[in-house]
Amino acid sequence: MSSVDQGRDPRTGAAVGAPYPHTDTAGVDRTVLAAAAAAAPLAALSPARRCELLRAVASALDAARDELVRLADAETALGEARLDGELTRTCVQLEMFADVVAAGADLDVIIDLADPAAVPAPRPDLRRMLVPIGPVGVFAASNFPFAFSVAGGDTASALAAGCPVVVKAHPDRPGLSQRTWEIVAAALTDAGAPAGTFGLVRGVAAGRDLVTHPAIKAVGFTGSLAAGRALFDLAVSRPDPIPFYGELGSLNPVVVTAGALTERADDVVTGFIGSLTLGSGQFCTKPGLLFLPSGHGLADAFAKALAGTTLGPLLSEKIRNGFEHSRRALAAVAGVRAISDGSTVDRAASPSPASVAPALFAVSADDLLRHRDDLLVECFGPAGLVVEYDTADQLVDALAAVPGALTATVHAASQPAADEARLVRRLLGLLTGKAGRVIWGGWPTGVAVTWAQHHGGPWPATTAPLHTSVGVTAIRRFQRPVVYQNLPDELLPEPLRDANPWGLPRRVNGQLHNGPITR
Amino acid sequence: MSSVDQGRDPRTGAAVGAPYPHTDTAGVDRTVLAAAAAAAPLAALSPARRCELLRAVASALDAARDELVRLADAETALGEARLDGELTRTCVQLEMFADVVAAGADLDVIIDLADPAAVPAPRPDLRRMLVPIGPVGVFAASNFPFAFSVAGGDTASALAAGCPVVVKAHPDRPGLSQRTWEIVAAALTDAGAPAGTFGLVRGVAAGRDLVTHPAIKAVGFTGSLAAGRALFDLAVSRPDPIPFYGELGSLNPVVVTAGALTERADDVVTGFIGSLTLGSGQFCTKPGLLFLPSGHGLADAFAKALAGTTLGPLLSEKIRNGFEHSRRALAAVAGVRAISDGSTVDRAASPSPASVAPALFAVSADDLLRHRDDLLVECFGPAGLVVEYDTADQLVDALAAVPGALTATVHAASQPAADEARLVRRLLGLLTGKAGRVIWGGWPTGVAVTWAQHHGGPWPATTAPLHTSVGVTAIRRFQRPVVYQNLPDELLPEPLRDANPWGLPRRVNGQLHNGPITR
Repeated sequence: MSSVDQGRDPRTGAAVGAPYPHTDTAGVDRTVLAAAAAAAPLAALSPARRCELLRAVASALDAARDELVRLADAETALGEARLDGELTRTCVQLEMFADVVAAGADLDVIIDLADPAAVPAPRPDLRRMLVPIGPVGVFAASNFPFAFSVAGGDTASALAAGCPVVVKAHPDRPGLSQRTWEIVAAALTDAGAPAGTFGLVRGVAAGRDLVTHPAIKAVGFTGSLAAGRALFDLAVSRPDPIPFYGELGSLNPVVVTAGALTERADDVVTGFIGSLTLGSGQFCTKPGLLFLPSGHGLADAFAKALAGTTLGPLLSEKIRNGFEHSRRALAAVAGVRAISDGSTVDRAASPSPASVAPALFAVSADDLLRHRDDLLVECFGPAGLVVEYDTADQLVDALAAVPGALTATVHAASQPAADEARLVRRLLGLLTGKAGRVIWGGWPTGVAVTWAQHHGGPWPATTAPLHTSVGVTAIRRFQRPVVYQNLPDELLPEPLRDANPWGLPRRVNGQLHNGPITR
Repeated sequence: MSSVDQGRDPRTGAAVGAPYPHTDTAGVDRTVLAAAAAAAPLAALSPARRCELLRAVASALDAARDELVRLADAETALGEARLDGELTRTCVQLEMFADVVAAGADLDVIIDLADPAAVPAPRPDLRRMLVPIGPVGVFAASNFPFAFSVAGGDTASALAAGCPVVVKAHPDRPGLSQRTWEIVAAALTDAGAPAGTFGLVRGVAAGRDLVTHPAIKAVGFTGSLAAGRALFDLAVSRPDPIPFYGELGSLNPVVVTAGALTERADDVVTGFIGSLTLGSGQFCTKPGLLFLPSGHGLADAFAKALAGTTLGPLLSEKIRNGFEHSRRALAAVAGVRAISDGSTVDRAASPSPASVAPALFAVSADDLLRHRDDLLVECFGPAGLVVEYDTADQLVDALAAVPGALTATVHAASQPAADEARLVRRLLGLLTGKAGRVIWGGWPTGVAVTWAQHHGGPWPATTAPLHTSVGVTAIRRFQRPVVYQNLPDELLPEPLRDANPWGLPRRVNGQLHNGPITR
């Protein structure tokens, strides 16, 4: 295995920038111990100070926008427009967490006043809040070089929680990871963060050292099922197991009813192909499965739409090789027909060692069930599978076999007949059990960063179905509750004091309010 | 290994009731599949209906109070007064969860309305709530035959979340488990719960089958570190890992400052010995470590207080044997002195094969650190260790070596001098990182069931530091978030509809309120 990370331009395969050496065990240890030393002073910062840290990081990234976007494009070939938008999203995310921290809205304060008359026993004064869990390891993803990388959602939410962060850089983004880390670390230092708050390590072995280091208290990960499972297994087999929040990818089933097809078949074709091929099919929310009524008659329309799509190269030659392997394996399963087999790469349009053609296959719902182990696996890249069903029961049975997913989508008639209305309710119940986000009449790519967002789902979409890697509640992954019993008011953390000096929303004796406690 | 569970009276070792055969793999499968079939209809019940289920269980247990307390006393020898109180606590807990469910306060509703002007991209309508995770396996504890057993906190919180439950009975409570299960299952059925909502299995192999059954989606466990770790390892090594919430016991350090000792040494002796020997030392919150200033001069007072304590027998001969083994191992560590060595059992007061004498040892803080692997382990039963420190730094170093705990307690002077005031703040910071509950001037035994309670802590106190097994937030262990994107109002679950028909507290566009959404 290589002992350096070397960036390459996916358009040409040419080296980008210098090689960056992997971090050895002693180096990981130093970085993590520095993070551990930062944990208590970082946790002790007021919300206003923590908020300043997050805003400083956002400003610094924004100020370096041209350089970062250029570097990212050289290492990913994702295009400057997309990357510019992704960097904006990354900054907006940091600003949003800053607002939440400033309002103390992440502390989940619950207070029960003493009650000497309580049954079955007198009750002491109990005041609970969330505190930072400690140093967090973050594994940067390949497909979002900003939003799920060095300064991405895991880092932002861990910092918002008040936790030091050690990032394991993605091997294909060495230069971008280095510059992002330098910019973020400098911004944190200038804004008053303790030394060691933000570290960076490189290499597969360093990743293992990070997950197994005794001072690391939780891990955030975005990447493949295989890599995520291996690291999850390390995290939970430690002498002291730690939470491992892995987002491992997803099939993201989309169901189209007969009514929707009658109403807007063209929109379904356009929308599906657009979502399937967005970012060259390298989104974790790519719709990998499209359930259509048998006899839909859309094969030619799909093929034509695919032929009209211009794809950038995949993120690396290795990812291209993985895609080609998965694509061929799909095509070889009994009962699978090609709508576009993806074998003809337009080298003129994309003359790169990482370029591929989009692929779309079709299979009956019965064959899907028959070959579920071969067909119900994620193919990372621009490939999808149309599943054709005859009856509602067949559709429901096939959906029931789909593993846990980040998203599930329903397209139905705007004014459904009674049968379809019944089917829709059945589908919504089933899909609520399958996915973290249930979408109506849209497409799963595009994940808004908001309070309510949930980017998660049952295994194998994630390793932790209670948690999200996007949205405000992502912070909760890196906090643990502590309750103080009968502590004198002046010794309590400010959020728990009678006077409520931060004006937080608190649950007091079961009721929510923002005021002080008066007696 | 025995293929039956046989109850025995700890006072005499005599059999109580009939032997109950272990559940074979097919039996576990049937029970879990029945629970899985109940999951969707149970989840679909309105809060009012779910609330009725919980209240019906509480009423049925209360109605059978005399029979249950008698049965529990025969199998545990814990005494009818304690057991009567514990059953009350169990009923109160179910009633409290019923109140929370009735108010919809457990659903954590977050709504972000669509925003076409959002940066970096227009934002859809997103509405998030918590839904039941699915069938839950619950492992009953030995030391609380009601509150942490068949109808205990794990069962109550899983049912409150809307999840079917399959309990693995504790082997030493076969008759009580059977009757509790019959009473609870009948109450649930009468109140309209779907068939299969509540199952019971027996035996070690059945426990393994339960944790590894594909239809089980989470596990609650209260018991030993060894058993908990083994089952945790099974849960996380499944093809689809599931959350495992284990409460594994704790050393529960108590720190007494010089100022507290000057002010109230007698209270410290009485309070500590009372808490150490409560329930014959078989509480997970038993104070196992007492940090005292060197030269405290309390050895005779402790020995006298212990000699004046009347202990019931331990819960079984097996637990007695484990206690004797741990007690002797503690006594044999270099530097450990006996205050009361626990070797003289008063057979006249407690003529049982499970009876023991309380033991208290002392060691210097330096020797504690030197022999930390032998000394910083839980001894289940009435044994404790006094740790003597000379300086604040020595105290802090010794505390830093204590593993994660359910509780940590500080006793300080009511009007501390400046030095002690500084030490107290240092201790509170350190202990917040170590424990789930930080107690001021009290004793850790006794865990109030309230909104704010947190009964949890870092490993090895629990397998899941973000969660609690006592208090309202215990429900969250068995819920997962789902967000609906652009779903028509009439298809949304009631808690998410514009009109807010249940009048829930909801966070809408970042702000908490109870009202409807108006446009």
